[in-house]
Amino acid sequence: MKSTISFATLAAASFLLAGTSLADKKPVPSKVSMADIIKASQAEDWRPLDPDNTLYLDMEKGRVIIELAPEFAPANVANIKTLVKEGYFDGLSMIRSHDNYVAQWGDADEKRDLKTALKKVQGEFTIAYTNAAGFIRLADHDGYAPQVGHVNGFAAGRDPKNKTQWLTHCYGAVGVARGNETDSGNGSSLYAVTGHAPRNLDRNITVVGKVRQGIELLSSLPRGTGALGFYEKPEQRTAIKSIRIAADVPEAERTQLEVMRTDSKRFQEVVEAQRNRGGDWYKFAANYIELCNVPVPVRAAK
Amino acid sequence: MKSTISFATLAAASFLLAGTSLADKKPVPSKVSMADIIKASQAEDWRPLDPDNTLYLDMEKGRVIIELAPEFAPANVANIKTLVKEGYFDGLSMIRSHDNYVAQWGDADEKRDLKTALKKVQGEFTIAYTNAAGFIRLADHDGYAPQVGHVNGFAAGRDPKNKTQWLTHCYGAVGVARGNETDSGNGSSLYAVTGHAPRNLDRNITVVGKVRQGIELLSSLPRGTGALGFYEKPEQRTAIKSIRIAADVPEAERTQLEVMRTDSKRFQEVVEAQRNRGGDWYKFAANYIELCNVPVPVRAAK
Repeated sequence: MKSTISFATLAAASFLLAGTSLADKKPVPSKVSMADIIKASQAEDWRPLDPDNTLYLDMEKGRVIIELAPEFAPANVANIKTLVKEGYFDGLSMIRSHDNYVAQWGDADEKRDLKTALKKVQGEFTIAYTNAAGFIRLADHDGYAPQVGHVNGFAAGRDPKNKTQWLTHCYGAVGVARGNETDSGNGSSLYAVTGHAPRNLDRNITVVGKVRQGIELLSSLPRGTGALGFYEKPEQRTAIKSIRIAADVPEAERTQLEVMRTDSKRFQEVVEAQRNRGGDWYKFAANYIELCNVPVPVRAAK
Repeated sequence: MKSTISFATLAAASFLLAGTSLADKKPVPSKVSMADIIKASQAEDWRPLDPDNTLYLDMEKGRVIIELAPEFAPANVANIKTLVKEGYFDGLSMIRSHDNYVAQWGDADEKRDLKTALKKVQGEFTIAYTNAAGFIRLADHDGYAPQVGHVNGFAAGRDPKNKTQWLTHCYGAVGVARGNETDSGNGSSLYAVTGHAPRNLDRNITVVGKVRQGIELLSSLPRGTGALGFYEKPEQRTAIKSIRIAADVPEAERTQLEVMRTDSKRFQEVVEAQRNRGGDWYKFAANYIELCNVPVPVRAAK
């Protein structure tokens, strides 16, 4: 007996499927698995990350790749891009790691010059939608939103009554820290969700994107020992070498990733395979999937 | 502007409230907060951990404290206690850390003698209940179970149709790794949930308890680079000094903790405060809480 939770279970929880993992699948599934679906996928089921809306957060241990969602937070994303282009984050650090909640980065001393970036940016907690077509609704009930689903690879909530939509705080979501005032954030301090989805934050703070690779570099940071998980001493903070927009990075240094198109039939197969798991390991099928348990597969570009 | 998510938000996500955090609350809440409720709590709102059903997992960096739930998994808990009493885990290690999923420990080489412990224990994925009184139901809808709530501090699902109940895979839940056969687990390899609740595992594997303190020692482990997050080299594995039953540890070395009684009125106040957050930071109240976002407060014994 190999005392482990089987691969079928685990692949399900992976937000990044390494190509190598496919070879490790042990039991022949009695029902199609996510790994099978990805294996059978075609080029048209994937889209590349847009280099103009991709951030590389480089640290000693590796690269965190964040896809920005300007369609959900145009003003905040624009300010973040200004900060990044002007080198705001280079040499700063991880300032906080709060267990089962968030990792946060920025200027621990809050002294660095914002240069041409705005000091205050109105929060974009929700945004109006005029075209409902881009929203691929999940059939399953969700207590935090009237409707949930995906917009171009981003997990989102939607309220058809007032025609608003918003990005949800699933694992890996990236947002703009703020104080009590709704315009008190500007993107100079950002956080990523590293625990069970704090969906209570939805519609209360601006979500600007999602970590597509390298979230483990944030989630495995030592936890801060101060209040709220802030680090108390400078030497506890992990340094950020730089944050750059992929488009500004020489081609040879870029990480080419593809995200499964959430408006593809293939993605619906993934959702169904996760809603009712196949393989020999599962004895009980949930017949349900909660939004933040839906994987949006990512792979190295082919 | 202190670029941070406010304390009210954060306390909400803490499963362990350090006494010191209470002093750090900044804005005067316009509505009662969880911190206020805990501050106003009385001795009768708390219960101590039972030393006979508490495990201390000691590592170089600190202690992980697990409360066992024999009422949900009597055979598996009994076998784990036999293994622990006979020193099975002492000197073994963390064998796996899979990002946003689980940390797992046991014998990487699977060679250690089980001594008098059973090699196979039938899975206790669900258990029949005859007395419904102990279940404190959460009012909120849950897609993974007909009913959810708490039984003596443990998050649980329940199906009144067949009168079964089970512990749910919320953050910090501890379970018995198994292979494909339902009796292939024996407790010699255990895992703790360190990511977004993989509720699809509910009713598929035996949950035996919950980490009451020290989960950050498991969740911040470096991620394994092998398939399924297994460590590939012995030097990557964090050593376990020992696992002991609290009752077998000299009083002076014990960690005295109390858990808020989930059948108390005080706990209902906590749930409501988290369902609709108070304070100056929140602009939108969710009016909903998902089971795994309900904190079960833990404190140092007074």
